[in-house]
Amino acid sequence: MTDRFAEYRALAEALGVDAVALVPGPNFARLMRHEFHTNERPLVVVIPVDGPPAAVVPNLELGSWAALGFEGETFDWRDQTGHDAAFAALAAHLPLRSVAVEGQVMRVFVHHALRNAYGTLDIRDHEAGIGALRVVKTPEELAALERAVAISEAALEEVLHDTAPGQTETQVQSRLLGALFAQGAEGLAFGPIVAAGDNSARPHAHARPDYRIGPGDALLLDFGARWGGFCADITRTVFVGDPSAEAREVYDTVLRANAAGHAATRPGATAHDIDDAATSVLEDSPFADRIRTKTGHGLGRDVHEAPYIMRGNRFVLPPGCVFTNEPGLYAPGGFGVRIEDDLLVTDTASRSLTTFPRELRVIRC
Amino acid sequence: MTDRFAEYRALAEALGVDAVALVPGPNFARLMRHEFHTNERPLVVVIPVDGPPAAVVPNLELGSWAALGFEGETFDWRDQTGHDAAFAALAAHLPLRSVAVEGQVMRVFVHHALRNAYGTLDIRDHEAGIGALRVVKTPEELAALERAVAISEAALEEVLHDTAPGQTETQVQSRLLGALFAQGAEGLAFGPIVAAGDNSARPHAHARPDYRIGPGDALLLDFGARWGGFCADITRTVFVGDPSAEAREVYDTVLRANAAGHAATRPGATAHDIDDAATSVLEDSPFADRIRTKTGHGLGRDVHEAPYIMRGNRFVLPPGCVFTNEPGLYAPGGFGVRIEDDLLVTDTASRSLTTFPRELRVIRC
Repeated sequence: MTDRFAEYRALAEALGVDAVALVPGPNFARLMRHEFHTNERPLVVVIPVDGPPAAVVPNLELGSWAALGFEGETFDWRDQTGHDAAFAALAAHLPLRSVAVEGQVMRVFVHHALRNAYGTLDIRDHEAGIGALRVVKTPEELAALERAVAISEAALEEVLHDTAPGQTETQVQSRLLGALFAQGAEGLAFGPIVAAGDNSARPHAHARPDYRIGPGDALLLDFGARWGGFCADITRTVFVGDPSAEAREVYDTVLRANAAGHAATRPGATAHDIDDAATSVLEDSPFADRIRTKTGHGLGRDVHEAPYIMRGNRFVLPPGCVFTNEPGLYAPGGFGVRIEDDLLVTDTASRSLTTFPRELRVIRC
Repeated sequence: MTDRFAEYRALAEALGVDAVALVPGPNFARLMRHEFHTNERPLVVVIPVDGPPAAVVPNLELGSWAALGFEGETFDWRDQTGHDAAFAALAAHLPLRSVAVEGQVMRVFVHHALRNAYGTLDIRDHEAGIGALRVVKTPEELAALERAVAISEAALEEVLHDTAPGQTETQVQSRLLGALFAQGAEGLAFGPIVAAGDNSARPHAHARPDYRIGPGDALLLDFGARWGGFCADITRTVFVGDPSAEAREVYDTVLRANAAGHAATRPGATAHDIDDAATSVLEDSPFADRIRTKTGHGLGRDVHEAPYIMRGNRFVLPPGCVFTNEPGLYAPGGFGVRIEDDLLVTDTASRSLTTFPRELRVIRC
C-alpha cells in the first residue's frame, strides 16, 4: 500500500526536523482529502520521519475522521474538558524535539498547545517547504481548477452583459455573487473586488453601496469561484463610456505587460523571470510610478500560495505549476487597471486557463 | 477626542503586558472599522499601555490604510524586499517585553516575525481577553446582525419551499447560496451545511453531489449570511416524508432542549447555566448517548467567538451579548437533529433574533 505520508516524511528529513505537523487548510486537505472547518477547536496531524503518524482531533469530528482511514493513533478531546490532555497524550506517545509547521496556516493557539505539551519543542515555520508539495498539480486537480475558471468566466460574462451606468458597486458585486453560485460555484476563492472610479486604484478595494458607476469610470472586477477545493482568480478591467486617451494608453501598457508575463512562462523559467518580464513593460512606460504589486502568486487550493511571482524569487517553474499573471497600474485618486490570468506551465511552454477576452471593453452609456 | 485604543490599553494593563497586538480579523475590524484580506502579507497593529500605537503594513495596502486615520507610526514594506526590516523598525521604535495576541487569529508567521524582531518578546495568547471586548454588541452592530439573520431566514424559506425528494444535497446547497446572495448577503458566515439522511448525523457534514434526499430522511440546513461585517447562524432540521415515531421523539427532545436554553437566558445567568439547562433535557431523554456538542457559541463579527456556551464556563452573560443556542442529537449511521437560534441577552431576559418556525416541518413526497 502506498504511504500517503511519504513525501511529508521525506520533507521532514530534508528539513532536519523530527516531524511535520499539519492543521486543517490546503496542505491538510491535499493529504487527507477532506476539508474541516477552521474554528476554535484544535485539530492537528503529526507525521514523523519514521513510524506511524498521530493526531489530535475534536471528539465532535470523530465521525468524519473515521471515514478518512487515518493510519495512526488519534487522541480526541471534548469541549467540556478541553484539549490539554489530548496534546499531552500526543507528546507522550510521539516524542519530538523539532517540528516543521505551516506558518501561514497554523494559528498561535495550536503553536502554544504544541509548545506547552512538549515543553522544549522547536517549532519551525516551513510554510514554503510544505507548500511546495502543492506546486505541481495532478491532472485531477487541474480539472477542478479549470472548472472553477469556467464557472468564473461564465459568471463574468453574465454580469458584464447586464452592467450599466447608475448601478452601484455593491449591486454589481451582488449580481456577480449570484451568477457565480448559479453557474455552479461551491464557494468563493475570496471576497470579490468590484471597484469603479478612484476605488479601482486600490488593489484590494471594497465595493461601496453609495458609488454609482458612471461615464469615464474604470470598472475592475477581481474574483474567483471555488470548485472541488480549487480556486480560480481572474481580473478584468472595463470602461464605462469612452475611455480617455490616457486610460487607453494605461490599458494597453498593462495588456502588454500581461502578454510579456505569459510569453516568459515556460518550464525552466524562474518566478523572477516572469515578474521581470511583466514589470519591465510597466517600468518602461510613462506610468512607472503607478506600479504597486508584484506580478502574481501561485494558485490552487489556496488563492494565494507558492510560488510568488516576484523579482528575486529564483524558484524554477515546473510543468504543472499554476499561478496568476496580474500586472496592474494604480493612480491613487485616479483609476487603476489590472488584467489577471491563471497560467499553467506545460511541458514545453504555458497555457492560460483563463480565456476571457482581454481586449479593451466599453460599457456603453 | 476619544482614544479608540483606550479599552485595549486598559486590557494590556489588566493582563500585565506591555501591549496588545492585533492582526486583520474580527478584533481588528471592530477597532479600525475596516476589513483587510487575510493573506501572506503580514499586517499588525501594536497598542502599548501608554503612548501612540504603531503598525506594520504592506505597502500595497497604504491607500486603504491612509483612509483609516491611524494615530501612530506606520512601517510599510514591499513584496520585493520583504517584511523583516519593517518589523525591526517597529521593535526599535516601540520597545516591548511582552505582548498579548489573539491566538485564534494570529498565525505562526506573524508570531515568528514579532519574536525575531524583538528577540526575547514574551508573546502571550490572550484570545479570551481580547475577544471579550466584542461580547457586548452596540445598537449599530445589532442592527447589522439582525439584517444578516433576516437575509438568512428569507433564503431558508425560499429554499425549503422548492425542496423536493430526488434533489441532491449539493443542489439544495447551491439554491441556498444563490438565495442568500439574492436576498442581499454580502458574504457567508461559513460554508453552509446541507446534510440529509446519515449525513445529518455529522455535526459538520459536507454536502454530497451523489446523495438524493428521499422519504424518511432528516434534512439539516446550518448556514448564515454575513452582512455589515456580522454573521448569522441558524439551523433547522426538516423531514422528507412522514418521520418515524423515533424521529418525532428525537425532534421533540431537541426542541425542548432549545426552549430550555432560551428560557435560561437572562442577564446574570452564566454560559454554564445555559448549556446545563439545554443539555439536561437531552441527558434526561432516551437519547443521551447521541449528545456530541456543547450548546453554542458567541456570535458577531466571527461566527464562532466568545462566550462559549458550555458547562464549566462561569462567564456571566451581559445584556447585549449574542450567542447560538443549538442543542442537537446525532446517531452515527442514523440521523441527526439540530435546532439553532441566535439569542440576544436583553436588559431583563432574552430575545431570539432568529424567528423562523421551529415546529416539525415535513416536505411531502
